[in-house]
Amino acid sequence: MPAPLEYFFDFTSPYSYIGLQAFDALASKYRRGVNYRPILLGAAFKASGMQALVDIPLKGDYARRDIERSARFNDVPFKMPSTFPISTVNTARALLWLQSTGSAKSLSFIQRAFQMYFVEDRNINDLAEIAELAQDIGVDAQAMTAATQDPAIKDKLKAQVEEALGRGVFGAPYMFVDGEPFWGHDRLPQVERWLKMGPF
Amino acid sequence: MPAPLEYFFDFTSPYSYIGLQAFDALASKYRRGVNYRPILLGAAFKASGMQALVDIPLKGDYARRDIERSARFNDVPFKMPSTFPISTVNTARALLWLQSTGSAKSLSFIQRAFQMYFVEDRNINDLAEIAELAQDIGVDAQAMTAATQDPAIKDKLKAQVEEALGRGVFGAPYMFVDGEPFWGHDRLPQVERWLKMGPF
Repeated sequence: MPAPLEYFFDFTSPYSYIGLQAFDALASKYRRGVNYRPILLGAAFKASGMQALVDIPLKGDYARRDIERSARFNDVPFKMPSTFPISTVNTARALLWLQSTGSAKSLSFIQRAFQMYFVEDRNINDLAEIAELAQDIGVDAQAMTAATQDPAIKDKLKAQVEEALGRGVFGAPYMFVDGEPFWGHDRLPQVERWLKMGPF
Repeated sequence: MPAPLEYFFDFTSPYSYIGLQAFDALASKYRRGVNYRPILLGAAFKASGMQALVDIPLKGDYARRDIERSARFNDVPFKMPSTFPISTVNTARALLWLQSTGSAKSLSFIQRAFQMYFVEDRNINDLAEIAELAQDIGVDAQAMTAATQDPAIKDKLKAQVEEALGRGVFGAPYMFVDGEPFWGHDRLPQVERWLKMGPF
């Protein structure tokens, strides 16, 4: 059985949200599992000397327009959050904890978190919002919020970010298909060819 | 008759080369003219505080891989030039001069210049190479190389770069379709929808 695909993302990354549904559909189509791996882009930006997209002169203005248009193009509901970007350290830890329990609800967590942030304009890094998210998907809210302060989970996120940087991840979504790196939701056509026909 | 599409590009931009053929095919399919407008990305990078892609840590390594893979994905012959990026000020001026003569060979010039740089590894900013390019496409080589030093052509390129910056161009290819900006060859699917169905 082939190794799972990997989808590195940050919960504050619009393109990670916009690409999620189509990526998941591709994985299903080609019968591949996916490891959804939350990271913190701030650390990656620091390593590569980059800034958050919307803070760059000229490029930032275009990015806001492109994000909204790309969401419409992909039929994904989207409203630019009033605070953007945000820290997502607690959200990422909550997901890592959920994954560590062997829960089958990881993807539901991710989808609901994106929806809360990019449609409902809620700060998904707040523990109160994370508790509501847990309830929405039928997970123990108290255990999940407590886990965001668990040293073992904190270390796990640090290690995941380090691993991502070590593997060259500098933006999101950043996908690996059998070792091949693809950056950006706009590379999904290339991902599909790779899944279908192998290396090209 | 609708206004021509615009394709802002730099002769040293691999993605401008990779996207050219598909963009031109889209324009033909939807019966639209195109203004191919050479600029100098160095000036745009200065305005936006960006660096050349391949010089950015992490991102640069990925970019080299992505450029070669994207060329294969688009069936475009490609060999990373031994010197990259290069100044393309003379190449851009030569094209501006050719366009100013009303010649129908602009697209042939662009295609041949890209081929010389990205397939044959020739420095297309050298006047000797520009003279050969002129001969290849059946244009007066002496007039073309002389034009690269013509103050009026120099001013024209400066004005074009200024106009591009004023309109938010920060990278290449940067396309306008009826006022809507699209950055990157990977936005061609969105360009096509815009051409086909109008604003979305």
